[in-house]
Amino acid sequence: MILQVTEKKEIFVQHIQQLQDTICAALELEDGRAVFTEDKWLRPGGGGGRTRTFQKGGVFEKAGVNISEVYGEVTRNMRDYLQIKGDRFFATGISIVVHPDNPFVPAIHANFRYFELYDDQYTKIDSWYGGGMDITPNYLFEEDAIHFHRTLKKVCDRYDDQFYPVFKKNCDEYFSNRHRNNETRGIGGIFFDHLRQNEVISENDHFNFVIACSESFLSAYLPIVKNRKNLPYNEKHKYWQEIRRGRYVEFNLLHDKGTLFGLKTNGRTESILISLPPTVRFDYDHQPGPGTEEDKLLQVCRQPRAWV
Amino acid sequence: MILQVTEKKEIFVQHIQQLQDTICAALELEDGRAVFTEDKWLRPGGGGGRTRTFQKGGVFEKAGVNISEVYGEVTRNMRDYLQIKGDRFFATGISIVVHPDNPFVPAIHANFRYFELYDDQYTKIDSWYGGGMDITPNYLFEEDAIHFHRTLKKVCDRYDDQFYPVFKKNCDEYFSNRHRNNETRGIGGIFFDHLRQNEVISENDHFNFVIACSESFLSAYLPIVKNRKNLPYNEKHKYWQEIRRGRYVEFNLLHDKGTLFGLKTNGRTESILISLPPTVRFDYDHQPGPGTEEDKLLQVCRQPRAWV
Repeated sequence: MILQVTEKKEIFVQHIQQLQDTICAALELEDGRAVFTEDKWLRPGGGGGRTRTFQKGGVFEKAGVNISEVYGEVTRNMRDYLQIKGDRFFATGISIVVHPDNPFVPAIHANFRYFELYDDQYTKIDSWYGGGMDITPNYLFEEDAIHFHRTLKKVCDRYDDQFYPVFKKNCDEYFSNRHRNNETRGIGGIFFDHLRQNEVISENDHFNFVIACSESFLSAYLPIVKNRKNLPYNEKHKYWQEIRRGRYVEFNLLHDKGTLFGLKTNGRTESILISLPPTVRFDYDHQPGPGTEEDKLLQVCRQPRAWV
Repeated sequence: MILQVTEKKEIFVQHIQQLQDTICAALELEDGRAVFTEDKWLRPGGGGGRTRTFQKGGVFEKAGVNISEVYGEVTRNMRDYLQIKGDRFFATGISIVVHPDNPFVPAIHANFRYFELYDDQYTKIDSWYGGGMDITPNYLFEEDAIHFHRTLKKVCDRYDDQFYPVFKKNCDEYFSNRHRNNETRGIGGIFFDHLRQNEVISENDHFNFVIACSESFLSAYLPIVKNRKNLPYNEKHKYWQEIRRGRYVEFNLLHDKGTLFGLKTNGRTESILISLPPTVRFDYDHQPGPGTEEDKLLQVCRQPRAWV
């Protein structure tokens, strides 16, 4: 069945609402102690969202699973930032960020969104999908990297065998700290934006692809959490985690378009900055010794690898 | 004596070199344990600097006292960022950031700089001074705020009685987190930029004013450190300090023009980011209870006060 354009918005919104429930329930179970609390918010210009968070869980130090559905007039800031032409917009998405306590468990970030643009008569003039999923380990376990990337590649390959290679490269390029010689935030995943119908792929396939990606979140991440969450760690490991989290903060506040766009367009600050890690260190010129486990991680951030 | 234009650069550079020594020595003495280490660096396009830092001292958790003297071609990024027209530039300055361990001692930031702009024949077409000094307490001690602002006002008043009121207001406006309803980073001080000769004040007076400001650093700050550094504190106070430091990071990475300009123009990343606090927390929607000491500080950040 090819969905009607008008149905897309509704089905996407229903999907992310349900996915928010599913992911929150699974993270609570995996955590064993934490319970999400919910903040519903309204956007003055139109729409709103449902922010769910917890902090200081048994496994996860901070987690946020947010959905939003916003619409209204295209402001000047939006025009500048998104480089779009149009008068009215509708945007909906789910955003997930998890910062585990144990330094051997990677942080994860995922985001899936759908955007519609209209003229001043509310006639749709454009629509597209965007999103991605990436992990940020502090220590490199090659089998985790392979599992994560393989899971994403499998989903991608069901739709187009060019998706994974292109979106993997996008991801490495996007999540990089340009002020640190393009050191990546973590070991990547996939990242895509402006997915529109073209000669090769239908709008419906994009729609299903994005939904399928979002549904792979738990199978991409939870096996890694289970494998690593009980590994013993000491202060030195925690210290390094906090140093790496510093780089995470630098990326999110200096380079992440979603964060900057949200803050500049009067998005809900607390929902946007839930992405920042709970405890962080900024040391002057911190350099792990060559050949250490810490250095091994740095090497793959400096020179992204092919994992599948 | 009215100094020759060509002498200004040299005298300013000599001054900040000497001031770096003086301030480092005084901070080491106050700290009682820390010793600055120095990194000299060269800028590929011309010039370089001398970064002095220490971490985990007895009183100060992180301190940076940096000087630089850079020159060369005006790049496109510089043109866009500084909104300047010219082909060659010379810039020199000193930058000081101190993050104390004890949450009752405020962090301090100061910066004093001199800029010259030339055409392609190296003929000077413009020059100006910029800088300022501000403190970021986690707990409000009114007498500290008064001492700090009074010290700065005294220096300002020696040159122009409009300096303090204008530069104090500049400071409150500049050091504010626009994404948090303009909550200020701390309780301000003074901030000025583009000080150029005009009908009211000579270039030489500006020059002497900036030097006088920079020399007031120790008398503005050290009495506060001495008064508060031995106050007992507990985990709750440290926690709040780290929450406030989160706001400090947000300001520096999202809004501070100096930081963003430095990072976008290939400045030395480690010297620029020495400003970031050593340990930081980002909690979701952290709100101190009404009427608490933490809340009192927040109130003056939301509604800057006149201190003198």
